[in-house]
Amino acid sequence: MDTGVDDALALAYLIASGAHIVGVSATYGNVLQQQAARNTRTVLDMLGHANVPVADGARHPSWAPLFVADAGCARFHGRNGLADLRIGTSATPKPRPGRVIASDKDGIVTLSMADVKNNIRQGHAISVGGYPVGDPHAELPTIPEFFTRSELAMPQKLGFPDENCSTMTDGARLIVDAARRYGRNLTIVATGPLTDVDVALRADPAAVRRARIVFMGGALTQEGNCYDLVCETNVLQDPEAADRVLRARADTTMVGLDVTHRCLLGPADVARWITDVNDNGVNNDHDSNNGGRNVSTAGTACSRRHVAFLLASLANFSIRANRASDPIFAAGMPLHDPLAAAVALDPTIVTTFELPMIVETRTGDGVGVRGRTIGDPRAALDDAKATHVALGVDGDAFVRRFTDVIAGFIASLG
Amino acid sequence: MDTGVDDALALAYLIASGAHIVGVSATYGNVLQQQAARNTRTVLDMLGHANVPVADGARHPSWAPLFVADAGCARFHGRNGLADLRIGTSATPKPRPGRVIASDKDGIVTLSMADVKNNIRQGHAISVGGYPVGDPHAELPTIPEFFTRSELAMPQKLGFPDENCSTMTDGARLIVDAARRYGRNLTIVATGPLTDVDVALRADPAAVRRARIVFMGGALTQEGNCYDLVCETNVLQDPEAADRVLRARADTTMVGLDVTHRCLLGPADVARWITDVNDNGVNNDHDSNNGGRNVSTAGTACSRRHVAFLLASLANFSIRANRASDPIFAAGMPLHDPLAAAVALDPTIVTTFELPMIVETRTGDGVGVRGRTIGDPRAALDDAKATHVALGVDGDAFVRRFTDVIAGFIASLG
Repeated sequence: MDTGVDDALALAYLIASGAHIVGVSATYGNVLQQQAARNTRTVLDMLGHANVPVADGARHPSWAPLFVADAGCARFHGRNGLADLRIGTSATPKPRPGRVIASDKDGIVTLSMADVKNNIRQGHAISVGGYPVGDPHAELPTIPEFFTRSELAMPQKLGFPDENCSTMTDGARLIVDAARRYGRNLTIVATGPLTDVDVALRADPAAVRRARIVFMGGALTQEGNCYDLVCETNVLQDPEAADRVLRARADTTMVGLDVTHRCLLGPADVARWITDVNDNGVNNDHDSNNGGRNVSTAGTACSRRHVAFLLASLANFSIRANRASDPIFAAGMPLHDPLAAAVALDPTIVTTFELPMIVETRTGDGVGVRGRTIGDPRAALDDAKATHVALGVDGDAFVRRFTDVIAGFIASLG
Repeated sequence: MDTGVDDALALAYLIASGAHIVGVSATYGNVLQQQAARNTRTVLDMLGHANVPVADGARHPSWAPLFVADAGCARFHGRNGLADLRIGTSATPKPRPGRVIASDKDGIVTLSMADVKNNIRQGHAISVGGYPVGDPHAELPTIPEFFTRSELAMPQKLGFPDENCSTMTDGARLIVDAARRYGRNLTIVATGPLTDVDVALRADPAAVRRARIVFMGGALTQEGNCYDLVCETNVLQDPEAADRVLRARADTTMVGLDVTHRCLLGPADVARWITDVNDNGVNNDHDSNNGGRNVSTAGTACSRRHVAFLLASLANFSIRANRASDPIFAAGMPLHDPLAAAVALDPTIVTTFELPMIVETRTGDGVGVRGRTIGDPRAALDDAKATHVALGVDGDAFVRRFTDVIAGFIASLG
């Protein structure tokens, strides 16, 4: 998970449903890996699951040794990935003017414009939310955009020079170990980039291929959510990894925008979580004064009221952000990651189309669009194994189910 | 129909199946409209259907007043659209060096480079197989390519200045009249660009919407067959028309590359048509000497042997061209138009996915890819009517059925 808002809601759904969570690999994506790890830990603790291990997953994609969280992500998830709620202290240093915060496999680094240029000169790619730095769509969060575009426009360097930056991580090891231990009883739920799943599959193909994989990502019959309207964010972060996972012949289900865009959680649904708490006579005086922004201190399981306000605040932040971004989200936030989590527990929530899938990794004449998820044109020749592509869902029914499950969980808390 | 090789085979399938063909609107596409009309007439005559009317359909798309057949089409269909078989005399003038042959609504015109530039200067678009002239993908068939690209690269002129070049045509009138007469019993089988169907739908929406529409075109779950691997040729020819047809709330079935690429007609299938003829003791000495290229004089219904060699020669030309173009067609030619014709007669040949569809008409950030067929992201808001998108087909079974039906028809001839 690259724990952001909808990853947190997915985690809540898994917990509320009584799933046995073996562990969580926290990866880069919506936020830096370090922030994702912290957010995952915080959410697990607050929801009473301090015993679930959180492992450090990939800090950058397989095609670049450095990763910067896209400036656009902060709009949908908050700068800290959790709706800018103040929960404990920040794990990630504040950006300084003229510098960007990036992560590499060893930790957090800050980069000046000179550092960025130097990396490019040495042939190292830097991923800015899936786009190589210098690409017009790469929005560096602190170095001003106009500066980036004019100074870094070096088309000859925009290839992907670092062909395999994959590294074994604790997160990938967690996946391998779980696959060896649980075999066919394990479901890998990937709600972020597929970098760690790819590494795990290559580290022990026999074991990891026995597990079921359900990933949130891709778009087949609907427009994507990246600039080109072709690609989906999680897949664009690491198209090579996603392509290898899809071709790995595992039992893989793709939960993409085809279905998640039809599961819109609205303000009225969320209000129920709060209303239920209030109707049950729980005192709610302190949160009404500060907009519910100080929901907890980290590391402690929370009361019913705290959990209700945590989850409602996360959802409401995303509902507002989505409404502001596109009229198709007027009714609410798409339940991307929660739907994938729910499908992991109950495949019947969606109907699937059986299709061997690939990810295109290059853009141009005869090669496609980097990050696009599409049917494998060579499937008939290769006898490729089909991906279960979720194309059908009763969106209203799932939103009701999701809301009910969360409400029931809140009601069960002390 | 923009009668080309697979349109001719579709026509043969319809005739062989005993379909009541009300008429054919011959349109631009694989070839100029004038050539398509001639080819359609020739095929109908040779197959004993001299009574079926052929009407002149659109000579250019709705976004350009001039159309040039793409140089690439000749590779798949022959320069005359019928595998370069010499059937009667040519209706289309031979291109002169340094000039291209185009069609406008009044007929055939030839254009020099100066004429092309002059048209652009006056704000008129010229479609070269779906691409505006000056686009790097527009392959003018006679003016050398390097000249086109350097001299015509005027990006500021590459928009689509002629917003509505649609004209009422005899072909569109044929569709309107048939819809008024046959109502729900009419199926419109579109195997070329949707320009005439669009004009007909706008001329009498109430009548034409009652008809069923089955069109060959688009790609949803598989790569496209245009340079970008996103778009399919028929739709790219006139994205605006295709978009209006998809949004017209008719009973519309899309038979796209999702299914046609799985129906590959191979040399052994085609050989059967010839073998059957020979086994039945028909003399085949004259065709073996010239590769079967002089199959007939136009205007007369043909013998069993002539028909067998016509259809086999068409198919073999396409089988060779497809094999040379892409390893995925090693097994044979995709039965694009024949599958659409077959689905018109028997919808159970394919399984469909119900999805409101649109065509993106512009390329760029936030707008998509011109010519892409994709789910309508606003469907939930607009309460749009679903297109029946063919996604499933038993390719081997259809190829057998197609081969059998054609073989049966050949056997039935005198």
